Order: sequence, then C-alpha cells, then structure tokens
Amino acid sequence: MKIQLINPNTCQGMTDKIALSAQSVCLSSSEIIARNPAHGPESIECALDETIAAAALLDVIAQGEAEGVDAHIIACFGDPAIDAARELASVPVIGIAGAAFQLASLVSHRFGVVTTMSRTLPTAEHLLHRYGYHHLCSGVRATDIAVLDLEQIQASAYQQLLQECRAAVNQDGAEAIVLGCAGMSDLATELSAALNVPVIDGVAAAVKLAESLHALKLTTSKSGNYAAPLSKSFHGRYQHWSR
Amino acid sequence: MKIQLINPNTCQGMTDKIALSAQSVCLSSSEIIARNPAHGPESIECALDETIAAAALLDVIAQGEAEGVDAHIIACFGDPAIDAARELASVPVIGIAGAAFQLASLVSHRFGVVTTMSRTLPTAEHLLHRYGYHHLCSGVRATDIAVLDLEQIQASAYQQLLQECRAAVNQDGAEAIVLGCAGMSDLATELSAALNVPVIDGVAAAVKLAESLHALKLTTSKSGNYAAPLSKSFHGRYQHWSR
Amino acid sequence: MKIQLINPNTCQGMTDKIALSAQSVCLSSSEIIARNPAHGPESIECALDETIAAAALLDVIAQGEAEGVDAHIIACFGDPAIDAARELASVPVIGIAGAAFQLASLVSHRFGVVTTMSRTLPTAEHLLHRYGYHHLCSGVRATDIAVLDLEQIQASAYQQLLQECRAAVNQDGAEAIVLGCAGMSDLATELSAALNVPVIDGVAAAVKLAESLHALKLTTSKSGNYAAPLSKSFHGRYQHWSR
Amino acid sequence: MKIQLINPNTCQGMTDKIALSAQSVCLSSSEIIARNPAHGPESIECALDETIAAAALLDVIAQGEAEGVDAHIIACFGDPAIDAARELASVPVIGIAGAAFQLASLVSHRFGVVTTMSRTLPTAEHLLHRYGYHHLCSGVRATDIAVLDLEQIQASAYQQLLQECRAAVNQDGAEAIVLGCAGMSDLATELSAALNVPVIDGVAAAVKLAESLHALKLTTSKSGNYAAPLSKSFHGRYQHWSR
Amino acid sequence: MKIQLINPNTCQGMTDKIALSAQSVCLSSSEIIARNPAHGPESIECALDETIAAAALLDVIAQGEAEGVDAHIIACFGDPAIDAARELASVPVIGIAGAAFQLASLVSHRFGVVTTMSRTLPTAEHLLHRYGYHHLCSGVRATDIAVLDLEQIQASAYQQLLQECRAAVNQDGAEAIVLGCAGMSDLATELSAALNVPVIDGVAAAVKLAESLHALKLTTSKSGNYAAPLSKSFHGRYQHWSR
Amino acid sequence: MKIQLINPNTCQGMTDKIALSAQSVCLSSSEIIARNPAHGPESIECALDETIAAAALLDVIAQGEAEGVDAHIIACFGDPAIDAARELASVPVIGIAGAAFQLASLVSHRFGVVTTMSRTLPTAEHLLHRYGYHHLCSGVRATDIAVLDLEQIQASAYQQLLQECRAAVNQDGAEAIVLGCAGMSDLATELSAALNVPVIDGVAAAVKLAESLHALKLTTSKSGNYAAPLSKSFHGRYQHWSR
Repeated sequence: MKIQLINPNTCQGMTDKIALSAQSVCLSSSEIIARNPAHGPESIECALDETIAAAALLDVIAQGEAEGVDAHIIACFGDPAIDAARELASVPVIGIAGAAFQLASLVSHRFGVVTTMSRTLPTAEHLLHRYGYHHLCSGVRATDIAVLDLEQIQASAYQQLLQECRAAVNQDGAEAIVLGCAGMSDLATELSAALNVPVIDGVAAAVKLAESLHALKLTTSKSGNYAAPLSKSFHGRYQHWSR
Repeated sequence: MKIQLINPNTCQGMTDKIALSAQSVCLSSSEIIARNPAHGPESIECALDETIAAAALLDVIAQGEAEGVDAHIIACFGDPAIDAARELASVPVIGIAGAAFQLASLVSHRFGVVTTMSRTLPTAEHLLHRYGYHHLCSGVRATDIAVLDLEQIQASAYQQLLQECRAAVNQDGAEAIVLGCAGMSDLATELSAALNVPVIDGVAAAVKLAESLHALKLTTSKSGNYAAPLSKSFHGRYQHWSR
Repeated sequence: MKIQLINPNTCQGMTDKIALSAQSVCLSSSEIIARNPAHGPESIECALDETIAAAALLDVIAQGEAEGVDAHIIACFGDPAIDAARELASVPVIGIAGAAFQLASLVSHRFGVVTTMSRTLPTAEHLLHRYGYHHLCSGVRATDIAVLDLEQIQASAYQQLLQECRAAVNQDGAEAIVLGCAGMSDLATELSAALNVPVIDGVAAAVKLAESLHALKLTTSKSGNYAAPLSKSFHGRYQHWSR
Repeated sequence: MKIQLINPNTCQGMTDKIALSAQSVCLSSSEIIARNPAHGPESIECALDETIAAAALLDVIAQGEAEGVDAHIIACFGDPAIDAARELASVPVIGIAGAAFQLASLVSHRFGVVTTMSRTLPTAEHLLHRYGYHHLCSGVRATDIAVLDLEQIQASAYQQLLQECRAAVNQDGAEAIVLGCAGMSDLATELSAALNVPVIDGVAAAVKLAESLHALKLTTSKSGNYAAPLSKSFHGRYQHWSR
Repeated sequence: MKIQLINPNTCQGMTDKIALSAQSVCLSSSEIIARNPAHGPESIECALDETIAAAALLDVIAQGEAEGVDAHIIACFGDPAIDAARELASVPVIGIAGAAFQLASLVSHRFGVVTTMSRTLPTAEHLLHRYGYHHLCSGVRATDIAVLDLEQIQASAYQQLLQECRAAVNQDGAEAIVLGCAGMSDLATELSAALNVPVIDGVAAAVKLAESLHALKLTTSKSGNYAAPLSKSFHGRYQHWSR
Repeated sequence: MKIQLINPNTCQGMTDKIALSAQSVCLSSSEIIARNPAHGPESIECALDETIAAAALLDVIAQGEAEGVDAHIIACFGDPAIDAARELASVPVIGIAGAAFQLASLVSHRFGVVTTMSRTLPTAEHLLHRYGYHHLCSGVRATDIAVLDLEQIQASAYQQLLQECRAAVNQDGAEAIVLGCAGMSDLATELSAALNVPVIDGVAAAVKLAESLHALKLTTSKSGNYAAPLSKSFHGRYQHWSR
C-alpha cells in the first residue's frame, strides 16, 4: 500500500526524519511517501502556526488523493485539519496524537504525554478530550524544547526530555509515555530503554494503524460528517478549491 | 470605539447584512468596520470550508490590528480561528457563537440552537462543549437551508426556520432560541415576536459584549495561551506571516 | 434604563461602595438604584447566611418590579436566589458570579477566582459547575479576609489579596482574575495594574451585561422554568407572598 | 432516638401524613417528632416557594437542636436548605431525595423518578447531579398533580401517577421507582404491588438512614464546610439569628 | 433477619473479625452469618485476586439463597461480583464500598478514602465513578499495609494508617474518612476519636443498610439487569452452575 | 508472531469460527492459536456468565504465557478479565471491544454498536465509558439474538441484525457499525456491503492491533497497575494460582 506521510510544517529535515521512522516500522509491502506543504510555517508551536498549517496541508491531501494513495498520516501532534482531510479523502486519515493514545492505552492503565513548548499544552489537552483519553492520561508535561531543535537533538535537550519523562513516571504515575511531537520519533527506543516503560511514537503508531485499516478494507465513512465537501466557489489564493 | 466585524467567508452580501445588524444595535459612539477576507470560500458549511476560512480571516485580524481597532468580532457560528486571532490581537476577539450562548443563558434556563446545514451540527456541539454551555442547551436543530440562501430569504425558507424554532420550544423545551448562523441576524426580532421567547442573534450579542469589555478596559490577556505568536519563518503564500 | 443593584446583605457601607462601582462604569443613560434588604445577615459567609439572605432579597426584587426597573443585579458572589428572582421578574436578573465568568472567558483561556472566606469555596465551585465554566477555571483561592473587612480595606489585607492573585497567576496558570466578592469591586483596576492581567469585578460586569440585554430587548423568558410562580397561600412572616 | 421530621411547607395535613409514614417504618425505640414551620408557603412547587421555605425551615432545625433531637429529616423532595441545616445541626440532617436515591441504587441498576409538577423537574435533575446519581437514573417524569392534591389523592390522580410509573418502567427502563414528593409516601406499597418493581419513598428511606447513622454514632462532621456558622448580626425579621 | 456477611477471601481470621464488627452494630433481631468461600486467594490485593475471588464468592451467594437469608453483604472494598450476585439473589446484595460512600456523604461535604495497597487505588477510583461519588471524594490514599497484616495490626501499621488519615483531613480537606478495607473495621471508633471527624467502616454501614432495606421490604429488582441469569450449560469446575 | 486468540466461553464452534476470521486477516508471519477454557459457561450473556468466564479464561492466559505467545486476544465483547490478564501477561492483551472502538473512531465521526442480548447493553455502555468512546458512539442496539444462534446464523436472524444496523445508521446517525459479539465476526463484509458504511469486527481489529504492537516492540507496562500479581496462597480449585 502507499501511505502518504504528511509533515504539516515546511521543514524538510523534519520530513526526512519522520520518513526514516516510518520506513523502519512499515511492512515491506508498504511504500512511505513523505511530504510537507510548500506553504506555511517552519514549525507548529502556537495556534497561529497550526491554523495556517491546517489550510496548507489540505493541498497535500488533495495531491495524495489524486495520486491514489491508500492512507494519509498527519504527522503533527495537534492532528491539524483532520476533519477537513477526512472530508476530502476517500481513504483513511490518521493523526499521530490519536494513534499514539490508542496504542498507549493497550499497554498501560495510565500514560503520560511529554511534549515540546508549554504553549502546546492546551492542544494536547484538547485532543485527549476529543478522542476520549483524558481519564487515561496521568498528565501532559512540556519540555520547552523548540520543535526545530529536535531536528538534531543536543545532549542537553535529550537530558531535559528524559528528565520530564522520568517525572511523568515517578511523580505522575505514568506507566507508558507518549511522545508529543513528530520530531521525537527517532528517540522512542532509546527513551524506552532508559525508562523501562513503553514509549510510543505517534508516527510509528499511525503507520501501523494505517496498515491495519488497509488490511481490513476499512476506510473513511462517506455517510455523515465525513461526506465529500459541498461544491462552491473559493476566491483568491484558495480558488483551486472551487468545486 | 472601532469594532472590526469580520465575515469569514467571501460573500459581500453577507458582510453588508451583518454590518446593518451590528449598526442597528451598537452605541452611537461605536463604529462598525465590516470586512471579509479576500480569499477563501463563499460560505462555510463543512470542515473544509472552515479550515480554509480560518487561515484566510487571520489576514483581516492583522489588518485591523495595524489600524488600531478596539475589538474584533468573528461573525461565523463556528467561531473559526478564535485562538489564533487572540494570539495576534492586542484587543478582545469575540466569536458570535460564544456571545450568543452567554446572553441566552442570562434569560433562560435552557436554550435551543437552530442552525443551517446538518453538516454543521458537530461544530455547534463542539462549541457548546468548549464554552461549557452543553448542559444548558435543550438541543441543536438544523434547517438544511444553505447559508447563501439566507442572503435574501424566501418565504418558504423562513417558514422552515420558524418551524424548527417552534419544535425547539415545544418538543425540546427550549426557553430561548440562539440563531446558529450570522446570516440569520436580521430575523431575530420577527422570530421572537412569532415564538414569544427571546431569540438571540450572535452578531448583535457580540457587538454588545465588545462594547462591554471596552467600557471596562478589559482586553485579551497576554499572559499564557494568548501571548503573541513565536517568531519564525513562513513560506509560500503565507510568507507575509514571517516574524 | 433603571438598574436595580441589590446587595443581599444588610451592610449599608457595602451597598454604597458597589453603587459607586456601578456608576463609574454604566452608560450615562443608565440609572443605578442600589439597595439592600431590610432583613437578614450583615454579610454572607456561609450557607446559613446565604439561605436567609436569599429569602430576604426577594422582597427587593418585588419592590423593583413594582417600580418598573429594567434589570436586577444580585451583587453577591453566590448569586443567591437567582432562580426565584427570575420567576418573579419580568426583566433580566443577573448574578455577579455568572457575569464575571462570562467576561473573563472572553479575555483569557483560563481564569482564576480569588475570594474571601474558605467557607465560600464550595459555593464558587458550585457556580462554576452550574454555569459551565469549571473547565475554564484554573482554581479558586480563598484569602480568609472577612467580607466586612473589605468595606475599608487595610494595607495588610490588600497585600494578602494581591498575594493570592499572584499565586493564581504564577502557580495555577490563571491568565485573568475574577474577584470573588462584591466588596472587592473597587480594587479591580489597582490589582490589574499590579498583576498585568485582566481583573474582572462582577458588579461592573453585570452592569454592562444588563445594559447589553436591554439594548437588545432581551428579557427573562417566561416560557418554562422562569414562568411566574404559581398562586398559593403563604403564612406568618411570608404572608405578603400570598398570591 | 428522637427524629425530627420536618415538612418544610405549612400544610398540617401533609405533616400528619408523613408522620404516619415515618411511624410505620421506624424502630420501636425511635420517636418521630413531626413539624412544619409556622411561616412560608402551603406547598413547594417552584423556586420562589423553595427559597422562602428554606429560610423558614431553619427555625425548626434550631428548635430541634435546642430540644436535643438525634437527627433531622427534611421531608421535601428538593432537600431545601440542607447545607445551612447541616451547619446549624450537631446531629445528622438527611434530605428525602438523597435518601431515596441511595436506597434505590441498592436494589436496581437504573431507577426512575416520578414527581409532581413539571416545574420541579430541574430541581430533581439538580439533585441527581449534586448527589452523583444522574447516571443511575433512567429519567424523571412529572405527573402535574398539585402537591396539595396528594393530601387525599383522588382515583384519577392515582391512575395518572401509576401511568407515569408504568411508562418509567416500560419506556425508560426503570428497574425501581423513586417517588418525587413527600406527599406520595403513603402510596409506595400499593404502587410497588401494581408495578412489580421496588418503589422507594424518601420519607421512609430517610428514617432508616437516620437510625443507621445513630446506631453507628456517625454525625455531621464539624470539620470543614459544615462547621457552625460564623457569629454575626442579623436584622429585621431574622434578628433571632444574631449570634 | 438473617444477614449473610461474605468475606470474599479465604482468610478465616478476617471472616471472624468482620463478624464481630457486624454483630456489634446489628439489631438484636438480626443474625449475622459470616462466611468465606472455600476457594480462592487468601487476600485481595490486585486484579488477579479479585477476578478469582469474584467467581468463588458466587458459590456463597447461592448457598445463602438456598438457606433463605434476607440479605447478602460482600465485605471486600472492591465490591467484587456485585452484579452477578444481584442476578442470583432474590434479596438485597450490598457492597461495603458503596455502603460506606453513602453514609459518608450524609455526614460530610467531602470525604477521603484510606485504603491498603497502592495497587488497589484504581479499584477505589472505579467504584467512586460507578456509584457517582467521585466529586464528593477529596482523594484516595494508600497505606501500603498488606491486607493480612490488618488481621492483628501492629502499632507501627496503626500509626501509618492514622498518619494517612490525618493527611486526608489536613491536606486534602476530607471532612470524614472511609476505611478502604474490611480488615480495618475494628479501628473506626479509635480513629474517629483521634481524628475528630466521622470514620466510616463499610461493614457496619452495609449491615445497617441491609436492615434498612429489610424493614422497608425493598429487595433487588428482578425487572431488567438483575433478572435471574439465563439457563445454560457450564462445564468443568463450574458445571454446578448449569441451569 | 504467535497470537493466542481466546474465546472465553466453552463453545468449540465459536472458537473455530473466530479462528477462521483471525486467520483470514492476519499477516502470513502470524500464527493464530485459538483456544477456549475447559471450564465455564457455553456462552456469555449476563453478569454471572461473565464473572465465571473471567476466572476461567485466566488459565488460558497462563498457558499461553508458559508457551511464549507474543500476544493474547480476549474474544468476547465484554473484554472480561482484561486487567487480571494484563497483570499475568508479559506480552500485550487486547480485548475485542476496545479494539473495535479504536478502529471505528479512525473511519467515522460517530459509530454505532449492534450487539446480541439486551442484557448485555450495560456491559457495552460500561466499556464505552471505560475506554473513553462514549461521546463517539451514536448508540448501542440489541438484537436479542442468542449468542449460540450466531454459530450458524439463520436468514431470519441475519435480517434482524441487518435491520438493527440500518436503524443505527438511519435513526441514530451511525457512520460506522461495531459488531458487538465475537460470534458475528464472519458477517462484517456482507453487512458492510449491504449498509455502505464501514463495519468493524473486533476479532479482526484485535489481530491487527496485536501485530501492530508486536512490530513496534510495545508490550504491557510492568510499572504500576499491570505489574505481576503479588505472591500469596490460593485455596481449593484455585490452588494452582498459589505463587
């Protein structure tokens, strides 16, 4: 199957990194097509960034649909534009936050989330409520490591991340850790070895869920809220969306 | 005070209509500056429309900030981009759904919401939860009148709207009605007379709340989640957002 | 318009103080009629005080209705007797706690409440749930300053209040502060300057909401739970309520 | 033990009726002292009635305390003034709604509530939330039988009550019925025989819970929210509350 | 009446202890029949123990039914197998956790729970949610005293228990304490004297509730979820359940 | 990998059927070991059945652990004994209800559940709450088809099932259907074709999730609630559990 893996920010380094993470866990029969939008912010760390990136990434969804991919993954922990993407797509669309919460809940009673900037905490809280995992989460912790600093993480930033993970386990009672940024996807194995609890990377989780849905021939329901968008005119820089 | 009233879709007729509604209720000392984005969909009726319109309306927020307006109103019942707008703004940003829920709760024990397309029901439900008014709402009803058909409403569409309002009162126990679309703002008085319960138009409600905050010198807190966005590069059609 | 501003306790000094607060923010076309009941406790600091004051203040509602006021404000942070008052009134009845929560939520993502006695914490918690603002509140803090000591606040008590506000901001993450007692209404400006976040006084908030509803011709729905009370006999000291 | 059974309205016939109900189920060692306040409404059917009755019944609590009773029961389904009564009392104070919910939950998975006037539905809903039984309730149904008509119930009113109980069982899935008015306390046995499910009368339930607490030497905690009221002056018709 | 008091673990010392507790509070007309299953774990401290004990204790329910007891009490704080027991029983089945929460809520605004092993905290949290008392609980604290060490408690373990109870009162704001293990039933009086707040033992609470239901002729509803189990074959060591 | 697929009832026909379903969707590298306990009920349709089956299936978990399987699936829609199984297991344990909810939420906004006996509705409701999917479920419908009648389903029973699925879609707004019994696992494809919405079988879903966790080297956290059970004596028919 072809999995379109979308990094919703414009940082090519991040796109390359998550492509590697995805390729390291996918089936041999899966092809990972990693992309980022041509437009938008270099990283997503506040509501402005996310609102712009959401509009930008929909172009990539449309491109993937045109090419006939079998699933889309939105690889930003805010799962931006997921409802609009599901309207556009004929195949499954998976967000990495939702994917990580699902697998974390299968291997722990309570999991913790460790994320980047404090500014993104409300987004994580919102997603825990939206997907129904709030009561299974022992808490969300921010490291205040900038997203772009994750591209090639320094020893000091890694220690900071490890320290917050330890606090999640020892103080909050987390039995597993969900990594709250696609940029951390290469660190899951090392952190799990250090912490001795499962550490879940949403990119890897989403790849396996995409393959699972594909194997079961399950795809986005077109009955109800995810039916195709209504036809109408769009203007200006969005006129390509006119239907 | 200067109130920037933003219609997030590109339909000029809708912008003109809500400008009239706002002007009919504002203080004589208030100036209504009604605008819509140059870009985006002609109406907002599904998640794709809303995601695009959210990114587009932020340009209008920035323009109003540059001009020194005293408040922004987002005049679409989904309150799109409200968090990003509050990050950008130094003055209050008010969404018409939240504004309508607030005033409705002051004059009733339970209020009903009557909106346009069935597709927008999840948005209304989401906002009732977000703002905390779900338990005070007797139900959300859709009329399946297209938003643009509200521009100059036909008798039959008006009857359909009236009928859903009556059902909200008689079957659901609504004691007041919140109109679920900015395009209905000119119908509140007539509907209230017919129904004999308060009917709340969010545009009018938001204007009075903007004036209230201004009189009390209350403005968006810049401590915490609505602090100014972080500086970073944006690319392509969003490079004007680079800071 | 005529706004009846009711201090539900019998302390004239408090009534005078909130009258000044209200007059300093109302429109020039608004007349503030400040009153307190002839009967009841000198301050409201526990459930006994509130239960007695609730019955007592209804006499003032009836008096205002007879005189044709355009709105009633119940100026005690417990919003006592608000349902019974809405049954009696043909015009809006606004409680200062609910009013403060509404405006606070328009200028912050999370607000804190700072109140008087620890004994009143359950009342504040109850109102946050009743009005649906619990998830938007970062916490309620008590200062254990007696209500009557607010009449002419000493420097030490002010420092105590300021300190709890600071703790709300710095420890709880409050982005705005709601003052949890009508007796603090003269301190909002000074506290906001010291804290650099919005500080909301419920008395001022309620005045602006009363004016907003009046401008929009919105008044208490008489369909459903706030319909006029049923006619029946009352005995003893309540026989004036016989209908 | 001495149990003070308080009918919070001034209808002597209702007081006599619930006294009989209580005496028919209490231990031989229990003495039922049934009383109603000298002041207030003849029945409690809306928020005005309840707010007045709440203040009035506190006099009876004080009288019982002075006489050394061992428990107080507030025999109105709204459990009015229960917090203030617990502040005043050194012994347990039990409301009949809370008592009925407790016993109903011990003999059913889901129970229904059948009450008097539609106007009292929000009170029942509020109490289900306050006490935590909302998720165990299959629904609240009103009969619109006036409270005073229960004093000597007509065959037609009984049929109406039976019919709503049947609908609760057959349509809502109620496995037991809670009677939503003290005035129905004499009908529990007959209704249970007709319906073949447990029917719980709150008066009887409260008597047994009062005896249970007494046997276990459990009484109202005076640490925290139910500590004795603070000393202060009361004026006018409430000056007897000055402490 | 005959009350079958079931200790679901196989520790005879615990059975004897709770029999004494029950006998010290029951009516003279009540007969306590204390039993434990012949099969299963010696104590219940994790989900494995509870799952096994649940199946084992149903044999004792069946025995009691055959003998015509008037009520069953499941004397383990996890209220194991309560739904299955209610299907089997024609008389009330009461769990000690639910019983303790009910009485605690009648004498306090917020109660704390102090239990044995940290491993049992999720069980207590689950029951608080199931029965609807979560919002009335100030917190659950574990002592990490092993259940069997409660049989004859050492001074040091008692001090540890007392210390956690004090922390519940002073730090969490508990106004009453619920003891989270049947094995603590002999300590309630001593702890209450030391703490000066009500201390509720679930075994005693359940006995009084069983007597209350019996006096009111209330028994498990056989309409709906607690109807008798469907007839079917059971195999192997459970073939005695074939119906 | 080796996946132990456990049918918790003793019906061999059901075990064979779900083995086929699992084999039809698993990877070629996966081996399905389908088993049922030697002890317990022939089908699970009420709380008694489930309580007995829960204890019985733990023997199969232990057997699988001893043999070194890589994952366990509990193939009954009540997910019985899942906490105890996770304590015992060193590898993941997946329940089919939780698995089905997860995949359903990835392809729909709201899903419906269609199950067997009305008696099992509370179990489904409980699991929706436990796993956090209640707000994403449009409703649970019972067909009152006996579990054993699913072994070789008659045309009439299939029509009944199809009719309830249609009602879920058309009346409740379900956008996808979760099949509420392992015995329906062979019907998903046919039903999906008839309904034109995704139909999720929990057995297939659990197999793919087990493979996903295995590929990511994620296994049950042994830190916290799913740590190995404490060592202690068990008696009688459970003495093989003594540790």
